[in-house]
Amino acid sequence: MAPRILEGPLVECVPNLSEGRDPHIIAAIASAVGAVPGVLILDLQLDPDHNRCVLTFAGPPEAVRDAAVEAAGAAARLIDMNRHAGVHPRIGAADVVPFVPLQDITLEQCAVLARAAGEQHWQRHGVPVYFYDAASLRPDRTRLEQIRYHGFQFLKTAALTDDYRRPDVGGRALHPTAGASIFGARKLLIAYNVNLQTPDVEVAKRIARQIRASSGGFPGVKALGVFLASRGLAQVTTTITDFELSPLHIVFNAIRDIAARESVAIVGSQLIGLLPRRALEMAGVTDFLWESWDDSMILENRLALAASGQFQIPGLSPEP
Amino acid sequence: MAPRILEGPLVECVPNLSEGRDPHIIAAIASAVGAVPGVLILDLQLDPDHNRCVLTFAGPPEAVRDAAVEAAGAAARLIDMNRHAGVHPRIGAADVVPFVPLQDITLEQCAVLARAAGEQHWQRHGVPVYFYDAASLRPDRTRLEQIRYHGFQFLKTAALTDDYRRPDVGGRALHPTAGASIFGARKLLIAYNVNLQTPDVEVAKRIARQIRASSGGFPGVKALGVFLASRGLAQVTTTITDFELSPLHIVFNAIRDIAARESVAIVGSQLIGLLPRRALEMAGVTDFLWESWDDSMILENRLALAASGQFQIPGLSPEP
Repeated sequence: MAPRILEGPLVECVPNLSEGRDPHIIAAIASAVGAVPGVLILDLQLDPDHNRCVLTFAGPPEAVRDAAVEAAGAAARLIDMNRHAGVHPRIGAADVVPFVPLQDITLEQCAVLARAAGEQHWQRHGVPVYFYDAASLRPDRTRLEQIRYHGFQFLKTAALTDDYRRPDVGGRALHPTAGASIFGARKLLIAYNVNLQTPDVEVAKRIARQIRASSGGFPGVKALGVFLASRGLAQVTTTITDFELSPLHIVFNAIRDIAARESVAIVGSQLIGLLPRRALEMAGVTDFLWESWDDSMILENRLALAASGQFQIPGLSPEP
Repeated sequence: MAPRILEGPLVECVPNLSEGRDPHIIAAIASAVGAVPGVLILDLQLDPDHNRCVLTFAGPPEAVRDAAVEAAGAAARLIDMNRHAGVHPRIGAADVVPFVPLQDITLEQCAVLARAAGEQHWQRHGVPVYFYDAASLRPDRTRLEQIRYHGFQFLKTAALTDDYRRPDVGGRALHPTAGASIFGARKLLIAYNVNLQTPDVEVAKRIARQIRASSGGFPGVKALGVFLASRGLAQVTTTITDFELSPLHIVFNAIRDIAARESVAIVGSQLIGLLPRRALEMAGVTDFLWESWDDSMILENRLALAASGQFQIPGLSPEP
């Protein structure tokens, strides 16, 4: 039986921090998160090339909110954006701080949590905050790119004079070393790359164009074709922002099929971070050409239905 | 998050009863099970052709033991084996009563439970009991077929005189109308059929021979080739008795590939009863040609590890 480890509402927080190289700084931030009772650290992805890292933790909503503020505060103290280099666009030490509903909580409730955390980040650490995605307060600030735009160096001047660039919380001026932070709420996303048996990045780019939402592909899927110099091969790098709408295996199958039409094989695929069990289940369900299927045919689901009084044996007449 | 609906040890019981037609009798047996506090009825599969049914219920060990005894007692009262017809081999009203570990309990503990239930069935209902599989008391009684042999009509005479046929619990004589019952403990099994795009049952038989354990195929897999008259097509009918050892998708892929070599397509597949979530997950995991994979990349598993203090971020030096 799959475990329900923690009871009650459960939120994940996935701060993207502008430090991917110094293990002491990252350990200090992780340690600030881990010190909040009830919070569990789940993952850390370091990206030294882009000098960024992504920390994943989860727990009850209030604990996760507090831990997010602690993480953002530690990042603000320890990271100086004026000395930061890396090609990835960024505006602050604690660059992006998304809250993700995992269990017994809505996206809207996570948005409320994100706004409260952002407010505290400003109050306690003097770092102005923008809100994005489900926590956005303005229709032109739903997407990260709209807020991040040209990055820290541009924004620290633009925010002072351009109302359009003014933070949602805090003064016009960015924090001199920590910049600004973007807090938000979003659905769980899957970061997923498929490696191609070719060094030709154009193949990867053509595949990416066909599968991504922005050019008419799968809804909620972002994709780029890139060249992996270390392995001498092309990669389709994807972010699946709604895996219930565009399941992982559908995306994979599409990449494989389009590549096959160009006579290119798949070397393998890579997960960055974690993926929800449900994404594998959805793939598993499609494997068997079921003539009839409903999710209550999964034992654990049937048990859940029965335990909540929602399962009746169909077609059985009541006892005489 | 996948729910853990019931805390603590959880056992499934899957009695095979010698009645597949009269809904009043089946409802009365189900009702006796449902009256035991803590027991959840999960499924009922009727087989009118063989005049059998399979009831599935689950709950805490003692409750499931009591419900199994109630079910067997109700079956013994309501079903007369002397008037029973059907090709499926059988020796009693409550023919086979397996206990299956679901959560926080071992197969051996289920065997103890099965023996206690069988003892009670004899004491309370006067029906002698054989023990099989993990609950077997004799090495020649591990497999159902060894006990069931020629069925009720044969056994009611043979048990009287042949020590080899003597029940494990109870007198030599079978119950005059309820026969004998076979209690046992086994792993969770998956009953799974694949339908072929051909009426030629020989193709299904050849496939079955290649995949089943008894002729050198997958361990723990039973398979037969049969003709489905109602649909005019051949079917490979399987029982996977150890899906961790011989995963569902491996069995399906083998059937599909062997059929393809005979230029026969798969129409679809059918599940009889329920399957554990894990079987789908295992299928999903293999779909993506992962370059590296471990189960802790599933969010829910990582959360479980973290909650039990078993997850450390690799490669992160402690805070200075």
